[in-house]
Amino acid sequence: MNSANTLSPFFEPTGIAIVGARSTAGFGYTIPSNLKKQGWGDRTFLVNPNGGELHGMPVYKRLADVPHSIDLALVIVPAPAVPGILDDIGRLNIKHVIVMSAGFAEAGESGKNLQAETKKIAETYGLNVIGPNCVGVVNTANRFSTAEIMPEVYTPGKLAVIAQSGVFGHNILERINEYGIFISKAVTLGNRLTINEIDMLNYFHQDPDTDMIVMYIEGSENGRLLGQTLKKITPDKPVIVLKSGRTTEGRAATESHTGSLSGEDVLYDGMFAQTGAIRAKTLDELTALTRVFATQPLPKGKNLGIITGSGSMGALATDSAINNGLSVQPLSNETIKKVKEGAPDWMNVKNPLDVGPSGLFPKGFSAMMEDPEIHMVLAIITIPYVVYQPRQASTTIDAAFFASSTPLRERTWPKPFLIAVVSHKQLVGIFKTSTEPNIPVFTSPEKATRSLASLWRYHHWKKEHE
Amino acid sequence: MNSANTLSPFFEPTGIAIVGARSTAGFGYTIPSNLKKQGWGDRTFLVNPNGGELHGMPVYKRLADVPHSIDLALVIVPAPAVPGILDDIGRLNIKHVIVMSAGFAEAGESGKNLQAETKKIAETYGLNVIGPNCVGVVNTANRFSTAEIMPEVYTPGKLAVIAQSGVFGHNILERINEYGIFISKAVTLGNRLTINEIDMLNYFHQDPDTDMIVMYIEGSENGRLLGQTLKKITPDKPVIVLKSGRTTEGRAATESHTGSLSGEDVLYDGMFAQTGAIRAKTLDELTALTRVFATQPLPKGKNLGIITGSGSMGALATDSAINNGLSVQPLSNETIKKVKEGAPDWMNVKNPLDVGPSGLFPKGFSAMMEDPEIHMVLAIITIPYVVYQPRQASTTIDAAFFASSTPLRERTWPKPFLIAVVSHKQLVGIFKTSTEPNIPVFTSPEKATRSLASLWRYHHWKKEHE
Repeated sequence: MNSANTLSPFFEPTGIAIVGARSTAGFGYTIPSNLKKQGWGDRTFLVNPNGGELHGMPVYKRLADVPHSIDLALVIVPAPAVPGILDDIGRLNIKHVIVMSAGFAEAGESGKNLQAETKKIAETYGLNVIGPNCVGVVNTANRFSTAEIMPEVYTPGKLAVIAQSGVFGHNILERINEYGIFISKAVTLGNRLTINEIDMLNYFHQDPDTDMIVMYIEGSENGRLLGQTLKKITPDKPVIVLKSGRTTEGRAATESHTGSLSGEDVLYDGMFAQTGAIRAKTLDELTALTRVFATQPLPKGKNLGIITGSGSMGALATDSAINNGLSVQPLSNETIKKVKEGAPDWMNVKNPLDVGPSGLFPKGFSAMMEDPEIHMVLAIITIPYVVYQPRQASTTIDAAFFASSTPLRERTWPKPFLIAVVSHKQLVGIFKTSTEPNIPVFTSPEKATRSLASLWRYHHWKKEHE
Repeated sequence: MNSANTLSPFFEPTGIAIVGARSTAGFGYTIPSNLKKQGWGDRTFLVNPNGGELHGMPVYKRLADVPHSIDLALVIVPAPAVPGILDDIGRLNIKHVIVMSAGFAEAGESGKNLQAETKKIAETYGLNVIGPNCVGVVNTANRFSTAEIMPEVYTPGKLAVIAQSGVFGHNILERINEYGIFISKAVTLGNRLTINEIDMLNYFHQDPDTDMIVMYIEGSENGRLLGQTLKKITPDKPVIVLKSGRTTEGRAATESHTGSLSGEDVLYDGMFAQTGAIRAKTLDELTALTRVFATQPLPKGKNLGIITGSGSMGALATDSAINNGLSVQPLSNETIKKVKEGAPDWMNVKNPLDVGPSGLFPKGFSAMMEDPEIHMVLAIITIPYVVYQPRQASTTIDAAFFASSTPLRERTWPKPFLIAVVSHKQLVGIFKTSTEPNIPVFTSPEKATRSLASLWRYHHWKKEHE
């Protein structure tokens, strides 16, 4: 419904009114304070019928009293007061509104009626409304956030997040930062009074700060248009989607939540597959895919090279790679020759390459990285910490496994490369410190292979559609 | 092939000979030292043709020179020397042998021949041989270990581990300890010259120190007998199995490893299902199932109560629960009544129960725990850390969520209870400290629901077969 650039006041407002600012605990208290802290004090204007002062800022009794032009209104008042406020907003010709208040379609019959009434007012004035029942937006580039977030979330990155649920959006932000991945912008949609996931997809498609999009939805009101939109975007930017409501019971659970109808899941499954969107099956997978897509180049083919110190782990990784559509082809003669130099008799030089305790991990790794027929590499570290610990003082994991004194976080390769450390948590920690965010470290081989398979499928789609 | 009690010298030897003790780096150097450190110095006797002394212990030139009766021999010599050593062992009437040396069936044609030759000698003397190509055994009760393990692995627990691969066995031990779960005994089978997974299952079935068994195999030489054995054991003790070789390529990967033929995977799938064994699909799932089975009672039915601060997470958990065979039934009138007291208007009291920011988490949790129609509970914590952090000084997670000042690790319930913390890693850490090992904390809802579904299926099997 909106052309992309009409949404920019949500992320780059020039004057913000907070209707419902107040001195008691809650968003009305913390958001003005946060905005001031992030340097938005001179463009933030507080409104509450009681007037007075808050966080050293004047509080205006009526929106009309604000002595500055306003292009974004945040509404944090009890639900029944929202229609009246929206009427004020409309009459003052403010076009962009975030309604954070809960108590609408997610809260039973009377809430549904209230939402319908509110929607009518929004339509009358042609308002763009995010929410109700949301925590609004984040823009890291200018440190503008209507949500309370951890300081590190403000670090600018290339990932845009669209979340139907406020809490969910929050969770994603707090979680991906742990892996050194940061966002460009985030939006929580709530009950989608006028602005929905399709508007936001179009906006982030055009956003120069955004390279990829992660989206959580419970359903869409217009599946066909969502599909068309995704198909247009995915050749340019990957879109990773987590959708709940796979089962009737799961759909019933969401209906009380953001008041949306989630529809038949099987239709969504087909739609995502046909539009190049990457569907995560679980929350864990969403995180894994985000880490891999945000850091790895696309593979030129589907042949996975696996190097490991354990035949068992090589087998588990192979099973998972094959089951997810990758191939694990025999090594080329040249690579076999390179690895066999200095290899003990018992070592079977093949793919997956089990180097056992031969000390040939660095050599095998380099040979796989150099082999143009290997399109992506998974290194599975299996050394027990009790064995690695005594060597810790005299080596680094970079030298011991990856044939270089340069930490992995500073090296790049033209093919995807993931690490799975199946060992003590201390050793996992040592790897993460040396590698992330550049090379994601997983703690089991299967999560890595599934992510690589998605990377390959996306590359394949992109090649056919760009 | 062995009745259970004939295997006890592997775990409770009275005299151990280490054939291949040596002063250069490797198992021959570290194992004598470890055994001495753990109090086994007076029952450990070192053998090496060079004689001399090691770690302050005499080294005998021949096994026959050892001045003490020996009931367990550890063999750590180059593969070609193993048949000769086994002949010595047989002639001295020692019946239990662990061959750690690699270079047998896993190492190509000549290794296969060497293994066949070794097997013939073992059969001639009626030897019980664990290995070759393994790291032997661990018994925490008497701190006897032929593997190098982290000090905490010696903590006695109730879980027995059977791993075909030595590295894999090691990984499991180092990983589960992180969650406060400890083992009774472990065995790594390697190439299974005479002792195989069936022998070990029978032994652990009878072992009073063992309550449950975790097993990793690449295949079995006698699938029918494995099935019969599992069927006998599972009504008494749960057996969790991870089997690699799901795909042809994965099977090919294992064939070079411990020299076993892994067989058609689909047959194993049916066999595990028909014998009450719990098959983990991935390494991650093996860990999750182990944590849940080791700590939770069996559920009396399949109705899951979900309490959360986010409707989205409730929906994801419901989807996963239903897809895995659980039910998420409406709340009883009594439970609804209990929760509705003091609930805000917008709160929809149902299952999954999304308490939002109402502060009713403790009340909802208690009501679900008290409801006899709810057979297991999943609490999904979604509070952003930025919101919890300021409250940290004045509350505990036990009070804030679980209606008690007693830490969760000290409380018990007659029904399974898991927690998923979908938030910042700091908050995950706070939960783990308060709850584990008593209540496993996951970081996504789906892993928890899948584990609960396995718990229910096992209970159902047990009821029908005991």
